[in-house]
Amino acid sequence: MVTRLSHFFLRTLREDPADAEVTSHRLLVRAGYIRRTAPGIFAWLPLGLRVKGKIEQIVREEMAAAGAYEVHFPALVPAEPYRESGRWDAYGDGIFRLKDRKDADYLLAPTHEELFTLLVKDLYSSYKDLPLAIYQIQDKYRDEARPRAGLLRGREFTMKDAYTFDYTDEGLDASYQAQRDAYERIFRRLGLEYVIVNADNGLMGGARSEEFLHPTPVGEDTFVRSAGGYAANVEAFTTVVPDAIPFDGLGAPVIFDSPGTPTIATLVAHSNAVLDPPVPGVAGPATADAHEWTAAHTLKNVVLALTHLDGRREVVVVGVPGDRDVDDKRLEVAFAPASAEPATDEDFERHPLLVRGYIGPWSETGPVLGEESATGIRYLLDPRVVDGTSWITGANIDEKHVHSLVAGRDFVGDGFVEVATVRAGDPAPDGSGPVELARGMEIGHVFQLGRFFAETLGLKVLDENGKLVTVTMGSYGIGVTRILAIIAELSNDDRGLIWPESVAPFDVHVVATGKDTVAFDLASSLSASLGDAGLDVLYDDRPKVSPGVKFGDAELIGVPRIVIVGRGAADGQVELWDRRTGDREVVPVADAVARLAAR
Amino acid sequence: MVTRLSHFFLRTLREDPADAEVTSHRLLVRAGYIRRTAPGIFAWLPLGLRVKGKIEQIVREEMAAAGAYEVHFPALVPAEPYRESGRWDAYGDGIFRLKDRKDADYLLAPTHEELFTLLVKDLYSSYKDLPLAIYQIQDKYRDEARPRAGLLRGREFTMKDAYTFDYTDEGLDASYQAQRDAYERIFRRLGLEYVIVNADNGLMGGARSEEFLHPTPVGEDTFVRSAGGYAANVEAFTTVVPDAIPFDGLGAPVIFDSPGTPTIATLVAHSNAVLDPPVPGVAGPATADAHEWTAAHTLKNVVLALTHLDGRREVVVVGVPGDRDVDDKRLEVAFAPASAEPATDEDFERHPLLVRGYIGPWSETGPVLGEESATGIRYLLDPRVVDGTSWITGANIDEKHVHSLVAGRDFVGDGFVEVATVRAGDPAPDGSGPVELARGMEIGHVFQLGRFFAETLGLKVLDENGKLVTVTMGSYGIGVTRILAIIAELSNDDRGLIWPESVAPFDVHVVATGKDTVAFDLASSLSASLGDAGLDVLYDDRPKVSPGVKFGDAELIGVPRIVIVGRGAADGQVELWDRRTGDREVVPVADAVARLAAR
Repeated sequence: MVTRLSHFFLRTLREDPADAEVTSHRLLVRAGYIRRTAPGIFAWLPLGLRVKGKIEQIVREEMAAAGAYEVHFPALVPAEPYRESGRWDAYGDGIFRLKDRKDADYLLAPTHEELFTLLVKDLYSSYKDLPLAIYQIQDKYRDEARPRAGLLRGREFTMKDAYTFDYTDEGLDASYQAQRDAYERIFRRLGLEYVIVNADNGLMGGARSEEFLHPTPVGEDTFVRSAGGYAANVEAFTTVVPDAIPFDGLGAPVIFDSPGTPTIATLVAHSNAVLDPPVPGVAGPATADAHEWTAAHTLKNVVLALTHLDGRREVVVVGVPGDRDVDDKRLEVAFAPASAEPATDEDFERHPLLVRGYIGPWSETGPVLGEESATGIRYLLDPRVVDGTSWITGANIDEKHVHSLVAGRDFVGDGFVEVATVRAGDPAPDGSGPVELARGMEIGHVFQLGRFFAETLGLKVLDENGKLVTVTMGSYGIGVTRILAIIAELSNDDRGLIWPESVAPFDVHVVATGKDTVAFDLASSLSASLGDAGLDVLYDDRPKVSPGVKFGDAELIGVPRIVIVGRGAADGQVELWDRRTGDREVVPVADAVARLAAR
Repeated sequence: MVTRLSHFFLRTLREDPADAEVTSHRLLVRAGYIRRTAPGIFAWLPLGLRVKGKIEQIVREEMAAAGAYEVHFPALVPAEPYRESGRWDAYGDGIFRLKDRKDADYLLAPTHEELFTLLVKDLYSSYKDLPLAIYQIQDKYRDEARPRAGLLRGREFTMKDAYTFDYTDEGLDASYQAQRDAYERIFRRLGLEYVIVNADNGLMGGARSEEFLHPTPVGEDTFVRSAGGYAANVEAFTTVVPDAIPFDGLGAPVIFDSPGTPTIATLVAHSNAVLDPPVPGVAGPATADAHEWTAAHTLKNVVLALTHLDGRREVVVVGVPGDRDVDDKRLEVAFAPASAEPATDEDFERHPLLVRGYIGPWSETGPVLGEESATGIRYLLDPRVVDGTSWITGANIDEKHVHSLVAGRDFVGDGFVEVATVRAGDPAPDGSGPVELARGMEIGHVFQLGRFFAETLGLKVLDENGKLVTVTMGSYGIGVTRILAIIAELSNDDRGLIWPESVAPFDVHVVATGKDTVAFDLASSLSASLGDAGLDVLYDDRPKVSPGVKFGDAELIGVPRIVIVGRGAADGQVELWDRRTGDREVVPVADAVARLAAR
């Protein structure tokens, strides 16, 4: 198939779009692949649609190879199933909601777990029907607060979402593995380097959850990895819990004056000024051999307010070593589906026993934090605060702290929570050594949903014994338009895009130059031969356009293989131009056809 | 490619869905092609998606052959361009509207004229860029008051909408013809009989507008056609205007008592009782040789209230011969974009000079209807009310009518309007003889939009003389999912669907029957051979399912070519079953492969 540029719906732009913050957005708009319709919402032009179609085709082929069947749900769906699952409320402002003329609630679905569950419930009833894998490639919507970075974080995006259905955990594991394998094949075919990171924070019953990240310094996501092969996103990283320390020989808690110590740094400086140095080997948490007080000796009590799904607001306190902060992403996951934010003045007013700036779990008259304490506030501890660790922390008296406060002896938490920041050098939980921090872009996610949606929406089947059992599900997503943008982000130089062959909008870009009809005639017959050989050819047949403009457009558009037909045309010579390497080679036209068709 | 039914995501249903009013809906749900998600909104199951994909592929190929390029707009679009065109208001309750988190207005677009116009405005600036044809295949939304008939009138539907851009009227004609030709090719490939009917009512500047209707007695749309080749929808039918009649010899208007004549029928009976019979050949409109008064001698004045786009309400009166009614569809088109409804009591209260039941254009003291009359009400006449026609009509006095009221002498209208019902036997406007009425289903629409959207949204290009000219556009729509339903509506028997080969979900349906592994082995190798030959094969490999159930499913699903592998398998014999004719033929397996692959 030959597409003539003189008629093609394409205009490249000289100027970068004003709102383009990232390379992919800038180049995709300039080269005529997409065009903005509204913030975060784009129209797809013919070039863009071709690349998107090629990515979708690869995804379809690998889904079929994994035994998954394609279905298609509408974008506009009724609220009811999402109410039943609780997501109608949980989504908050993040989705588009609307009413129909009968005042019924609808949403533009950001994902379709509920509807897939109900569809299978509708049609299936026996273990013999399972396993099942079904998927769709569908335009989805999310009302992002700050749509940005072009297709990387839009309000409309195309996604492949697959779901698997099994009636045993072993079945789910097998279905999960088949999708995971398909994802590896997809990313290999797309030429996208990937790291599979653990995204399971252990809180959802140990079901597997992994993200495919493309490692790149400009990635939005941080992940950790060890030389020994551990990889996880920061939300899923779990702390290696140190051994408990015997209480024997640990001094009793001592309250001391600490005026003017609003920060951990000032508290540490003050402690070194007024206290005896820590006794090496006897007390202290991570830095048991330290000879002076450090932030790691202090216990920071952070007051948070959780909003639960039912609207209830709960104040909780988390205690983390003073040398670490609360990580926003870990916090979000740790308390999901509740949302967490710093406590407000109003929250503090409702808890007058909290002495701001000097909060701690202990007082001379009894516990201050914890469900059994005077405040009744739930108190959750970083896993490093094991029994026998000794801390400097607030004494619940204005301008006073306490030292030698020992976990397990002087105070206890209501449980542990993984919200502290992860640092390079922290030990990997699998014993594979210290981790480093790296950045990546999420390109896929495979996730064992388990029985939540099936339980909520009543998807059960009869097992071998005629007993009703709840189905267990997996969910597997690839952002098609996001991947297109990521490929564009990685595949370019200062002159434009350079597509991998697997997703290039055309196989070959033929450029006819000069005023000579000989060149145009040869380019035309060359294009026809390549088209007959089954290649998709973009033929720049524009008359009266200078070679410079044509070459510039070819570089901007980024078809990896270019053939220039110009000066040598009279002698039957054409020039093969490799867009990626920049190499040019003059060859007889018959050789050009043979070499291009052979690939 | 071979799809094994034992794993395929498909369940046929024994029962008809409760809400299915039409055959296509009933069969598509029962055979596992679609499944209801919400009223008028469906999920597409693998079988349905395959048929839909085949229709889309035919459309794509013919669009490419017509030189049109594919683009893709989002379903969710900003309100602003639709405000500028006036359609945001004009749509009323018929569209889904929503707001984003910043309170900006959006809609789910039912069509994309505005955005196509703005896209071309964005990228094009010269006559050299034109002509241009671009299209999309896209999921659209309309908030139908009564979604019904499954896919035939849904709230979500897939449509191919194409738009052409030219800078001359001749260019538009050529672009229009290219799309019209493509439509003919598409419907021929789909095996869909069609009639092209004129849909141009002449009111929009003579631009061409034609509908492709599939003629069927169960169609929703009425159209008219003559033996001589004229075809139009009722909205577009234009009346053949009779010659004017000289005023000479026509009597003066005479008021007469007419108590108890609230209807045309009672008025006619009363007239025949109290008046001399009409003088044949001297007076009277269409029935100049009648010897008694008929409804055709009366002039019915219908009071309507128009609501204009700017919200202004205008009372108008239309005068039509008493033997015809006002046709709702013709009325809608005649006054578009204003909407028309019968005048209410309040409207009459605002016009006390109208004597209800006895309204007419004339009184002894001067005109009563017309912009220059006592009431100032705009008065529009049926084209048959030519000068010299003589009428019985209201005298604007309670219980009195007037006869011998002559058009052009005693009263005039402010213009003519085509709102009267069309009847079998009416002359076709092109002189091709009397028309008959027929019914059909709309399957496509080609339409010269002209310069409305380009003018409104400022799409201009420089012409050969460097002068800015407004672009002229065409709009061309095919309802992909609607066509799928229409094909299903036409392609079935009492056992299920019977797809045309061009859109069948599979090329061949292989059914293995019996308990014998020989049959399954042969069916499996036969399926593989057919798959290798490039056919899409559905292989019913379900063990322990009776032949009756398998045959029933095959008939319901409707793949036109079925191969049964059963009793004769040990001798290498299989049975070819033509789903359409019901013919079955036993042949050696090698012959079956050869014959199926050859088609």
